[in-house]
Amino acid sequence: MANTSIILRVELAHDQVSFGDVASVISRAGGDVTSIDVIRVGKESSVRDITVDVQDSIEAEVVQAIKDLQGITLINVSDRTFLAHLGGKISVQPSMPIKNRDDLSRVYTPGVARVCTAIHENPLKAYSLTIKRNTVAVISDGTAVLGLGDIGPHAAAPVMEGKAMLFKQLAGVDAFPICLDTKDTEEIIRTVKAISPIFGGINLEDISSPRCFEIESRLEAELDIPVFHDDQHGTAVVMMAGLINALKVVDKPIESIRVVVNGIGAAGVSVCKMLLAAGLQRLVPVDRDGAIVRGGTYDQPMWQWLAEQPQVEDVAGRLEQVIQGADVFIGVSRAGLLKVEHVQSMAKDAIVFALANPQPEIDPELAQPYVRVMATGRSDFPNQINNVLCFPGIFRGALDCRARRIHEEMKLAAARAIASVVSDEELNELYIIPSIFNEQVVTNVRHAVIEAAIRTGVARRIPPDFR
Amino acid sequence: MANTSIILRVELAHDQVSFGDVASVISRAGGDVTSIDVIRVGKESSVRDITVDVQDSIEAEVVQAIKDLQGITLINVSDRTFLAHLGGKISVQPSMPIKNRDDLSRVYTPGVARVCTAIHENPLKAYSLTIKRNTVAVISDGTAVLGLGDIGPHAAAPVMEGKAMLFKQLAGVDAFPICLDTKDTEEIIRTVKAISPIFGGINLEDISSPRCFEIESRLEAELDIPVFHDDQHGTAVVMMAGLINALKVVDKPIESIRVVVNGIGAAGVSVCKMLLAAGLQRLVPVDRDGAIVRGGTYDQPMWQWLAEQPQVEDVAGRLEQVIQGADVFIGVSRAGLLKVEHVQSMAKDAIVFALANPQPEIDPELAQPYVRVMATGRSDFPNQINNVLCFPGIFRGALDCRARRIHEEMKLAAARAIASVVSDEELNELYIIPSIFNEQVVTNVRHAVIEAAIRTGVARRIPPDFR
Repeated sequence: MANTSIILRVELAHDQVSFGDVASVISRAGGDVTSIDVIRVGKESSVRDITVDVQDSIEAEVVQAIKDLQGITLINVSDRTFLAHLGGKISVQPSMPIKNRDDLSRVYTPGVARVCTAIHENPLKAYSLTIKRNTVAVISDGTAVLGLGDIGPHAAAPVMEGKAMLFKQLAGVDAFPICLDTKDTEEIIRTVKAISPIFGGINLEDISSPRCFEIESRLEAELDIPVFHDDQHGTAVVMMAGLINALKVVDKPIESIRVVVNGIGAAGVSVCKMLLAAGLQRLVPVDRDGAIVRGGTYDQPMWQWLAEQPQVEDVAGRLEQVIQGADVFIGVSRAGLLKVEHVQSMAKDAIVFALANPQPEIDPELAQPYVRVMATGRSDFPNQINNVLCFPGIFRGALDCRARRIHEEMKLAAARAIASVVSDEELNELYIIPSIFNEQVVTNVRHAVIEAAIRTGVARRIPPDFR
Repeated sequence: MANTSIILRVELAHDQVSFGDVASVISRAGGDVTSIDVIRVGKESSVRDITVDVQDSIEAEVVQAIKDLQGITLINVSDRTFLAHLGGKISVQPSMPIKNRDDLSRVYTPGVARVCTAIHENPLKAYSLTIKRNTVAVISDGTAVLGLGDIGPHAAAPVMEGKAMLFKQLAGVDAFPICLDTKDTEEIIRTVKAISPIFGGINLEDISSPRCFEIESRLEAELDIPVFHDDQHGTAVVMMAGLINALKVVDKPIESIRVVVNGIGAAGVSVCKMLLAAGLQRLVPVDRDGAIVRGGTYDQPMWQWLAEQPQVEDVAGRLEQVIQGADVFIGVSRAGLLKVEHVQSMAKDAIVFALANPQPEIDPELAQPYVRVMATGRSDFPNQINNVLCFPGIFRGALDCRARRIHEEMKLAAARAIASVVSDEELNELYIIPSIFNEQVVTNVRHAVIEAAIRTGVARRIPPDFR
């Protein structure tokens, strides 16, 4: 259950109530006072801001308890989360101040005309002379936002702004949110192509399956800048990083194992592709109607593609059947689909990545006795598989070498780089994936991605540290 | 002719050449040394950066003169303008650092979900909880950039970035450049509508006539945020501000004068509309085939509209005829179209605004003896009519009161506000318009625009200073 931090602005009448009374009342109602700020003190009363940590579900009770106290006036209740969002979470800054006419003539008319002419004569100069050098669009149509589903472009904005904050803070990448007021596949493709010139890369976000597959692949084909749908690939890359390390812990090579992937949506398809690219030989993709089998026929084009892969098993069955004897379960589906009996029927030294958000496919505490390595998407358990480990470094690398695309080799390189941040000495069942605040992650990912891009011929620039 | 500032990195062999020799050679070639930086000094040679101000046209000669000098190695020639553009001129900054898991949970998952839900339930909250509060898109298709014409979206970017710098520095407005890879009117309209949710306003820029009229009016009708094509209206607003003050200087009310407007393109149409809204009774719009006359028929819809206005004169003729006896000439056309004889035939106390860029319709020095008040678009003459006086304040005001549109009343209010920055005591023939660096401009414009928006019912929020 989510914790909230609320700020209660209260006026206390000195002769009727003390701050101690207030603090007691809050504690009894279930809140935890974390800070107090005196706003003003008068003869007869004082105004204070009291910050209280409280579970979402009892916030109203705490507020009511305060109101019920004699001698206290509740002036306002603010929420630190909402306060952090006032006016948005990013801003645009000029690279230099324009102090006088001289400055102006250099960054604007008339001097800027020569820069325009230089780019007109050689459009690749846009990469050195404009923000294309360092800027990624974070684009959503708001149809698959977090656990909220289709909430539209205005409501999606706070997530896209948050993503932009992370791009900048973790990798120095300038990212701008674009929230599309259309859900039509062709219109989305046309729109993104039309706005692409100022950007060095496109990060697609929270666009629902199955439209996201065609949108990404068409844009990748029709643009010469990288296009990356984080919900598909970010999860897959970080999953792969975790799996590389988990397989080290249990000492099983990837070619020897059998993996069940539950939930063949945007992330699930990408997870399967990455596993195959990494050398997996036995793959069982499972969705709501059971296993997708080699040789079967499916309407959904991605499912059909899977059905044609030699590594996909041809035995039908529901999850409880196909998971028997599996070495690895990767869940990118919904809460509660994985039962304890299922886990118990897995192979020895089972690895379970239950990545459904916000509730995993199985409660980690229930699974723990039967699993050697456990991972989820949650921050309150060890081994959090978090996309934030991937997208900043992968775009930092792509921008620095002006990669045309972010392809499977680069994604696999990123996965290996994330895994490598955890040294052999540190590696154990409870630490298979680094923290998102570990500064080594972006450095390693950037380097590996550039190396892969250069090696495979998609880099258009060799950065100074690679010469 | 444009001045450039170049930086010559030179290595000087101590036994062959002194810095004095170098400075002399530069002076003789026509350059002006403005600064020297010692980069490194060795036993036998030293390396220095020499900054030289030089006319564009003789830059090559100065460089050659240096190369010809014995004992000197020219390592590099940099241009301060190009240096200022490296990597682009704007960046995106987070509003706060994300220092730990607590911060992350507030600006990203899971806390951000509650903010998304709040907006989903009430989309107007996007104005308080996202960057829609303060952000404008600067949108061009690159078809009419400065004096360069159709140079396309990549080459237009430096101008759009420069515009974003000015929005931020002068009015605190966050502006992001979008350069469109399409010239089709319908596609531009669809694209701008599709990307509009994150923005509080749209500034159209450098989109050629006549497509710009339909694009702007359709977007205005189909979006609920303000849409403003600066090339049309910015020029008209600042022209109007200058004219309000020029008419004070010559003591002629606007209702009494006859005005010739030369060049009925994007800016010219808007100039005419603003003059009519301000109360002008006798208007003569002139284009390349002569005057547009009341009662005439024209293919171009804006020209046809003018031909139906009662204030437009019905007498045909070329510029040299219709300008006879005019009180005011406004040029938004091309260099050299206004001759001295034309000006001499104007009324007493003639006002001439020759706004063609980079060369005005007439050389101000030629016109001066026959004109009471002269203005151009150039910064090297008094009375520069510069759009930079309009767009920052007009959007600051529109954003602060969440205006649905920026209509004629608001533009006229902005014009009067700009004019009012010049006090009656300061006002004279050589000072009719404030400097773009005058901080009073944005304050006055913002206030006037909000007042007009509230009065005409297009404001959706009353800012604190208006309650």
